[in-house]
Amino acid sequence: MSDSLDWHGFHHRLVRVGELGFVIDLSTMPLSEQAERELAPSFANAFDEMREIEAGAIGNPDEQRRVGHYWLRSPERAPEPEWRAAIVETRERIQAFAARVHAGEIAPPEGDRFSEVLHIGIGGSALGPQLAVEALSRADDPVRFTWLDNTDPNGFDAAFERLAGRLARTLIVVVSKSGGTPETRNGLEHACARLRALGLEPGPQLVAVTAEGSALERRSHEEGWLERFPMWDWVGGRTSLSSAVGLVPMSLAGHDVDAFLAGAGEMDAATRVADLTLNPAARLALAWHVATSGRGLRDMVIIPYRDRLALLARYLQQLVMESLGKRFDRDGRLVRQGITVYGNKGSTDQHAYIQQLRDGVDNYFVTLIGVLDDGAAAAPLEVEPGITSGDYLLGFLLGTRRALAEDGRQVITLMLPRLDARALGGLVALYERAVGLYASLVRINAYHQPGVEAGKQAAAGVLRLQRALVEAISASTGEALSAQSWAERIGEPQHAVEALWVLEHLAFDERAGIVREGVPGDPAARYRAAD
Amino acid sequence: MSDSLDWHGFHHRLVRVGELGFVIDLSTMPLSEQAERELAPSFANAFDEMREIEAGAIGNPDEQRRVGHYWLRSPERAPEPEWRAAIVETRERIQAFAARVHAGEIAPPEGDRFSEVLHIGIGGSALGPQLAVEALSRADDPVRFTWLDNTDPNGFDAAFERLAGRLARTLIVVVSKSGGTPETRNGLEHACARLRALGLEPGPQLVAVTAEGSALERRSHEEGWLERFPMWDWVGGRTSLSSAVGLVPMSLAGHDVDAFLAGAGEMDAATRVADLTLNPAARLALAWHVATSGRGLRDMVIIPYRDRLALLARYLQQLVMESLGKRFDRDGRLVRQGITVYGNKGSTDQHAYIQQLRDGVDNYFVTLIGVLDDGAAAAPLEVEPGITSGDYLLGFLLGTRRALAEDGRQVITLMLPRLDARALGGLVALYERAVGLYASLVRINAYHQPGVEAGKQAAAGVLRLQRALVEAISASTGEALSAQSWAERIGEPQHAVEALWVLEHLAFDERAGIVREGVPGDPAARYRAAD
Repeated sequence: MSDSLDWHGFHHRLVRVGELGFVIDLSTMPLSEQAERELAPSFANAFDEMREIEAGAIGNPDEQRRVGHYWLRSPERAPEPEWRAAIVETRERIQAFAARVHAGEIAPPEGDRFSEVLHIGIGGSALGPQLAVEALSRADDPVRFTWLDNTDPNGFDAAFERLAGRLARTLIVVVSKSGGTPETRNGLEHACARLRALGLEPGPQLVAVTAEGSALERRSHEEGWLERFPMWDWVGGRTSLSSAVGLVPMSLAGHDVDAFLAGAGEMDAATRVADLTLNPAARLALAWHVATSGRGLRDMVIIPYRDRLALLARYLQQLVMESLGKRFDRDGRLVRQGITVYGNKGSTDQHAYIQQLRDGVDNYFVTLIGVLDDGAAAAPLEVEPGITSGDYLLGFLLGTRRALAEDGRQVITLMLPRLDARALGGLVALYERAVGLYASLVRINAYHQPGVEAGKQAAAGVLRLQRALVEAISASTGEALSAQSWAERIGEPQHAVEALWVLEHLAFDERAGIVREGVPGDPAARYRAAD
Repeated sequence: MSDSLDWHGFHHRLVRVGELGFVIDLSTMPLSEQAERELAPSFANAFDEMREIEAGAIGNPDEQRRVGHYWLRSPERAPEPEWRAAIVETRERIQAFAARVHAGEIAPPEGDRFSEVLHIGIGGSALGPQLAVEALSRADDPVRFTWLDNTDPNGFDAAFERLAGRLARTLIVVVSKSGGTPETRNGLEHACARLRALGLEPGPQLVAVTAEGSALERRSHEEGWLERFPMWDWVGGRTSLSSAVGLVPMSLAGHDVDAFLAGAGEMDAATRVADLTLNPAARLALAWHVATSGRGLRDMVIIPYRDRLALLARYLQQLVMESLGKRFDRDGRLVRQGITVYGNKGSTDQHAYIQQLRDGVDNYFVTLIGVLDDGAAAAPLEVEPGITSGDYLLGFLLGTRRALAEDGRQVITLMLPRLDARALGGLVALYERAVGLYASLVRINAYHQPGVEAGKQAAAGVLRLQRALVEAISASTGEALSAQSWAERIGEPQHAVEALWVLEHLAFDERAGIVREGVPGDPAARYRAAD
């Protein structure tokens, strides 16, 4: 690829998003007029579908749900008048709540002000808030965030150690749409136990973000929680950043929620345009389709050159992989779709895996994301005469672009003028729309996640297995049997390997009175009730 | 795949690492006796090569370097007597240094004790230390770590805000083998500027980890730094965790360096065995080869079910991708090798991308890593009768294993009894050896990184371009030209796109007196010297 062609290609192919000032450079992607022509009918259909979804069509037919994250930025577009009112009212209620927390009007029972937020949620209820709070944080944020996003007892302990001495001043936000997510429920139970150990009742420190009518909502009423904010069934977890899921933590962190929603709304307007040559999200979706042959044949590497965007790749990993990673298309044909996403931040990642991107297996396309504003002090430090750290950062981005493109590797460059709440809203909305359009191109439902259920069911099966093993061993008279034999005894011979690990886990702490005889993890080891 | 077969396969295929107690379960990988037979000669050769490398052969012929990270755990195996002495002496010196820091004998000029460590390094000089410090951290660690691992001025500011009020009590460890890594140099310059702004001379707070004779070492002498520790040219960055690179931060964090090295040494002993059926690293390399067809055809997904191992996937991403992502094999044939690695932690990641792993494109094999020890309080909290958060965590691991394997997806399960310094050493050594053996199988040099240089050179070119643009515009008499025209003016028409972004970056802050006329990022915008 010649670089003089590059300027020509750059000039003629770049996409600008007017007021946000984003520039998407696809000149180093193997686009062709032929590919655009071939995909034009699919895009025309995708634009139609998107218009219908925004107008209130059932975007998620498997679950008979509408798909309305776009309405959160433009309530007037919501198809039901009561939803419009609910969107506006919820936003206002969140902002008023955060203002009262910051003013100390909503305060912890013991202590003058909430200085900490413990956020409990996982997946769509965690990654967006984590991304937004980190991307927009400043030194004078009114509260500090700690996150519980797993069911790791060791991780819970580490988080509470971090909060040691401040737990009484911690506002706890519990986010679960269904209210039944086990990881979130477990985090809540640990938090309540910690508070009670300090002699505190949990309710006056708790806030729920959950679907109306969920078990979590009921609990929040019964236990006198501070407040609750709704999640609606027309907002999916991975696109919930513009809902209470994102607005509550952003507001508590002191970030500009209105600017975030305005930026997302501006991007929505730009990506609503039914024109493949002008619509930035359609351009992205086109590039993805060409890169992956519409079948996930390349991984999407995401490298933002800004520390505070280090979570963006994980956020997009969830958004893209959970939306596009589907077994069947809408006609029930086996398609095994998806696009793998990974990345962290530049230039750091250049020292981790650019070696492979440059020299190794050609199985990816990379998106380099730059920010022109260094966000640094008024008089930036020169590390060499005339050169700043920010010049190096941009130099590494452009140098990587050059080195990869010269070798024919596939590169998308996305430049933002600055990284603020408005830009973050625009960035999120850009990818939300690109994913929606891409799903239309490959004819899948982007808004369900049937494959997640299989693992959850299997996990529930493992817990049932554990209960049955404990019961059988407790009821035995000291018999020492192998994991395989115990699995047979409880009628689950097909789950003997799982039985072995469950028994090893229990025996590690002699929990439920179970002990091991023999070598740990050895299939021949035997387990019995302790004497 | 039938689960009763599963127990049989598990029983007959599992690999145990004796005293460390690791168990590797490959029963849900498509291994076959035929594949083992076919690869047996390659493995025999790989074992030979590994023995020669450990005996001091030139493992990295391109750079004419020996490869000695194994000697760091077994100094008596180092081929040169003076290296043996240097390994032992360095380790002792590091531990004595850390003990004196903890005791307050090495103390900040103003203040009684170093309470913070600022670690400046990138890539191989950062990921290992970050992984180890985080994986082993406890509530009573004697110091708290902050990391500079990029050249982002905004990220630098955020780190120093975090250290506000404590910078005078911060020990600063600067890690760069060559001493010339720009990101690290820039971080150092920012740190020195911050200290000087407080009226402090940097030297008495600085420690260098660098190659003997490097520019950084010279500087450390000239400026009276506290201490310096060596990096040797026979230790590569991505395998440097057992060298001063890892031992200095681990010792300062109060972690058990001797146990770490002992665990790695135990794994070295187990993986030195020249027997494909017994050697755990060889079993892993075999599974990788079968999964990827020896050509990187599947991604390696790494999901440890433990919050404090969340960096493991990024550590392995660097280790695997930088080692295996090679353009040419040892005979100079174009091979474009590599294996893509990504992941974060379970069960969190189940809510991000298990949907795609379960249902979507079949382009991966996954390694699930479990820890039997919950590392929790003596009386673990039951979130349901008889069930703890840790039971859920194991349940999600085993449930995911079941759900994926039932669908024919490729799963490796690695179970550790506990996660302590010794286990972490074993884990790191296991993957180091597996990568080394795999590189032999596919006949590449695992120990160089020629592709990284291209990006660095290109970045240096961008900085030269910036200097030339600033000079040309400063020398002009207010001419307003497009980026393309300025690029032509300085004789770099082929770098017009880069010129545009360099000029936009400068114009954003009106730096070097450069202003823009027109729309930001528009190819038609014009740049000139400010009036």
